[in-house]
Amino acid sequence: MLSGARVFITGSSRGLGVEMVKQLCERSSPPSLIVATCRSPETAGRLQELSYKHSIIKILALDVDNLEEHERVKSEVEQITNKLDILINNAGVSPKATRINLVQPEQMTRTFHTNVVAPLFLTKTFLPLLQKSDESQSLIVNLSSILGSITENTKQGGLYPYRASKTALNAITRSLSIDLKHQNIGAITIHPGWVRTDMGGNNAPLSPEQSVRGVLSLVDSYNTSIHNGNFFDNLGDPLPW
Amino acid sequence: MLSGARVFITGSSRGLGVEMVKQLCERSSPPSLIVATCRSPETAGRLQELSYKHSIIKILALDVDNLEEHERVKSEVEQITNKLDILINNAGVSPKATRINLVQPEQMTRTFHTNVVAPLFLTKTFLPLLQKSDESQSLIVNLSSILGSITENTKQGGLYPYRASKTALNAITRSLSIDLKHQNIGAITIHPGWVRTDMGGNNAPLSPEQSVRGVLSLVDSYNTSIHNGNFFDNLGDPLPW
Repeated sequence: MLSGARVFITGSSRGLGVEMVKQLCERSSPPSLIVATCRSPETAGRLQELSYKHSIIKILALDVDNLEEHERVKSEVEQITNKLDILINNAGVSPKATRINLVQPEQMTRTFHTNVVAPLFLTKTFLPLLQKSDESQSLIVNLSSILGSITENTKQGGLYPYRASKTALNAITRSLSIDLKHQNIGAITIHPGWVRTDMGGNNAPLSPEQSVRGVLSLVDSYNTSIHNGNFFDNLGDPLPW
Repeated sequence: MLSGARVFITGSSRGLGVEMVKQLCERSSPPSLIVATCRSPETAGRLQELSYKHSIIKILALDVDNLEEHERVKSEVEQITNKLDILINNAGVSPKATRINLVQPEQMTRTFHTNVVAPLFLTKTFLPLLQKSDESQSLIVNLSSILGSITENTKQGGLYPYRASKTALNAITRSLSIDLKHQNIGAITIHPGWVRTDMGGNNAPLSPEQSVRGVLSLVDSYNTSIHNGNFFDNLGDPLPW
């Protein structure tokens, strides 16, 4: 799936995003284009460095939260290519202090906007390009979390904004997978593991390298009949809703 | 669970809400108090009529969307009672025209607010009263939908705002069930069936009477070890997330 593909990624300046860009470039059969977006390209040092080494990287400014920017970025992408094969909705937020006694309405609203509304409408904006993919199949990859699995929430509770948003992201991924199937556009949702990033913190068991290796391996081996509309961890094992 | 209970219901002017109030009053062992809330009591004819016949009904004005009103309504309830046994989050919305080509950001945001943020923060506001319940167990009942089951979304797709909101409501119900268990407060989420209401339309197979009979029977037979944190249909059968 990845070899020669035209890939679009959000949140590419740090964490899993920049690691995905890096590993994509370093593949023996890399993509032909990586549109790497982030809020502030001017301060995205690691991403800029990668782009000096790898000409397949095109960096564009995009704050996914600002839905008004989506069309502008689409126009910018269309100056480079009129088709995309893989859209990776990686940008996301995780607010702190969200036990029932601490959670605030604004946390619910903002987290839902960034983690659900933004990827849904970015996807909608880029559908015309995904529809033009030359591949037999194009793919929407939504970065979710096991914290969005209701089944797996048996002990810890809490985390209302993040859980609600990732569960909802899973729900819309399933609907996308059904609505777009006849256009040969698939949609999957992936838990990248608990990773040592700004979001995951220092105690997380996985390095970004390990997590992204698994995520990209899953994407590369995408198979509609197995994966479409489903939820996987970074080892490619299915997760329950 | 229902006999002698102090019950609080949102969205009680019509549909399933007013039918719940009616059937609660008509039970051979009715609740001792039903706080029936709706946006505009002055135009809630059926609810007003019921309250003339049944003195256990106290009608209060509440637009659940307006989180500022929650504390005011809590103060009004505290003038009647300092404890509640059952909180039924029934008020909800379902926007039309939400296929991928039609869905709008405002539909996502508004539906999430009414169906998820409002019940979560109403619940949070009323926790002090639920904590004072004399019953061995008090209960939060969230009216969800099978459309919030990702597992069951295998053919129809679409419905992004409603599915995302009801899936998220299921997720927060599970967290509430864990966070509040040690206070003997349970939380369940119920699919009332597809019902002939303003929301369900005329083609729905179930009458409000049939649906509510099942919902109340489930609530009445609530058993922590079987039901807490889980999702049921109006026949009391478990539904998958």
